[in-house]
Amino acid sequence: MAGARERQDRLTKPPGSLGRLEELTVQLAGITGLPIPVIREKVIIIMAGDHGVVSEGVSAFPREVTLQMMANFLRGGAAINVLARHVGARITIVDMGIATDLDPHPALVIKKVARGTANITQGPAMTREQAEQVIHAGVEVVEAEIAGGLDIVGTGDMGIGNTTPSAAIAAVLTGIEPAKIAGRGTGVDDNGWKRKVEAIERAMAINNPDPTDGLDVLSKVGGFEIGGLAGVILGAASNRKPVMVDGFISTAAAMLAVTLAPAVRPYLISAHRSQEYGHSQMVAWLGLNPLVDFDLRLGEGTGAALGISIAEAACKLLAEMATFEEAGVSDKG
Amino acid sequence: MAGARERQDRLTKPPGSLGRLEELTVQLAGITGLPIPVIREKVIIIMAGDHGVVSEGVSAFPREVTLQMMANFLRGGAAINVLARHVGARITIVDMGIATDLDPHPALVIKKVARGTANITQGPAMTREQAEQVIHAGVEVVEAEIAGGLDIVGTGDMGIGNTTPSAAIAAVLTGIEPAKIAGRGTGVDDNGWKRKVEAIERAMAINNPDPTDGLDVLSKVGGFEIGGLAGVILGAASNRKPVMVDGFISTAAAMLAVTLAPAVRPYLISAHRSQEYGHSQMVAWLGLNPLVDFDLRLGEGTGAALGISIAEAACKLLAEMATFEEAGVSDKG
Repeated sequence: MAGARERQDRLTKPPGSLGRLEELTVQLAGITGLPIPVIREKVIIIMAGDHGVVSEGVSAFPREVTLQMMANFLRGGAAINVLARHVGARITIVDMGIATDLDPHPALVIKKVARGTANITQGPAMTREQAEQVIHAGVEVVEAEIAGGLDIVGTGDMGIGNTTPSAAIAAVLTGIEPAKIAGRGTGVDDNGWKRKVEAIERAMAINNPDPTDGLDVLSKVGGFEIGGLAGVILGAASNRKPVMVDGFISTAAAMLAVTLAPAVRPYLISAHRSQEYGHSQMVAWLGLNPLVDFDLRLGEGTGAALGISIAEAACKLLAEMATFEEAGVSDKG
Repeated sequence: MAGARERQDRLTKPPGSLGRLEELTVQLAGITGLPIPVIREKVIIIMAGDHGVVSEGVSAFPREVTLQMMANFLRGGAAINVLARHVGARITIVDMGIATDLDPHPALVIKKVARGTANITQGPAMTREQAEQVIHAGVEVVEAEIAGGLDIVGTGDMGIGNTTPSAAIAAVLTGIEPAKIAGRGTGVDDNGWKRKVEAIERAMAINNPDPTDGLDVLSKVGGFEIGGLAGVILGAASNRKPVMVDGFISTAAAMLAVTLAPAVRPYLISAHRSQEYGHSQMVAWLGLNPLVDFDLRLGEGTGAALGISIAEAACKLLAEMATFEEAGVSDKG
């Protein structure tokens, strides 16, 4: 980090004038151990799961959309496909536990734990053993990507209903009441929003998750894709790879990862401030400052893709700009 | 604009979930007249000039740095070169009036009006005829680029001392006192900042620019590169091309352009919120909302380059995403 800082001050610009981009390179130097960090191999891991709580009427879209959107990802027609192409990232799509099965596809990784979680308003989402399995699957997925070449990983999610368990995780970990965390998700109306808040309140009451135990929180009010992304984050950090955290669901996953292993925090970059209601409180809990604020609320890793391109730009500036000496430019008078 | 909006609602995502990126495509559709706007040819025009007011001790860097940085641009070693490569934009560098002369270079356009402006604390920066010449030169430069293919233009600047005339322009046009507009520029200390504010106050007192007359403001307290960029903006808008406005200096240029021709405003996109003190008040005066906030204060078009990539991403989303119908995805329940 000292090496990156020192080089930033020798580049042909007023010291500090690249602001947040300079800070990013210093963080990336610390993560990777390289004074001039390189971002070339970019991967977005999209994890998908279904949610028993959808039967409580918490989402604006029907559950079948999870599967339909997976097919859309595999055909390249979703927002994340467009943005991944734009920033030169590859995508890995993981079935962590959707309700139905997709045909095999080279870009599809199957880590299915079950066909959707149980309804968290009636009991735990999954068993503690399943929660462990979910985390391990996430680690395995990211380690396979690291073996194939990975300089930064972006997190992405798909799962109709998954803002409900994500808001529940955030409410449990921050201690903030669900009505101040839960938002409109994909666009529920006022009644849908009330059902969602009540579902989270019931889930917390019936399951009584322990906020100091990340596995307990995941198993009781979580989701397969959310836990899988927590595993991705743990696996990336333990291999000194930076994680570009997407929006609401990914941030809930990051909160689980930090609860399980607080040392993960410096490896995280928050890509964007989600329009989803409680997101600002979640990034504040993590001590992160999102890179951009575009009022996104789509998930899939869309914000992460944009963030990855910004991090890559920051690294290129550090690596490719001429120094005052090289360029024969007079330093500050 | 209606066509872009209607297509956004048919794409496979919850309506509105791409937030600011959706709004951008609607604006770009209005600018270009295309319901699915395309950003392929990206150009950043960097205009350079020197400033007589530098002799008042208003800058942290010596005047020779303007020329040295021009050479750095031509060799590809500056921040804007790195970012332009990153986002796939070409760069045009224009000598609008630097104090010395550069050797001819294929990437260098010479539109030199004079060897630096006069000292604005002692009289006008330039004559009214020169101000007209500056605006016309900017229009010519951007029209030559449009002839070569241009879907979006980013503005960039180089000129040691140019935050002083830019702050003066902003103070005149907004009516806000100079001490609340002028910042640290490339990094002056407290005494340098005081000299800068006093220089602006003296320049305004001695020249008494008319805030309703853009040419008067430019000629009295402006600069050659600032007026040139105002010309670029006027020329782009009159050819229905979107303008990605960089930071403090470019925003002062945009204010001049809007004063000269208010119809220009809808063609402007503010790329970033500069760390330079008065910038927020300047974008507010223009009615713009900057895309990103990275605490940049470098100029050169660095923020514009990042903004161009975001605008391109927005257009690709509109053009390339599958619709609900194409993807067989169930619409909102």
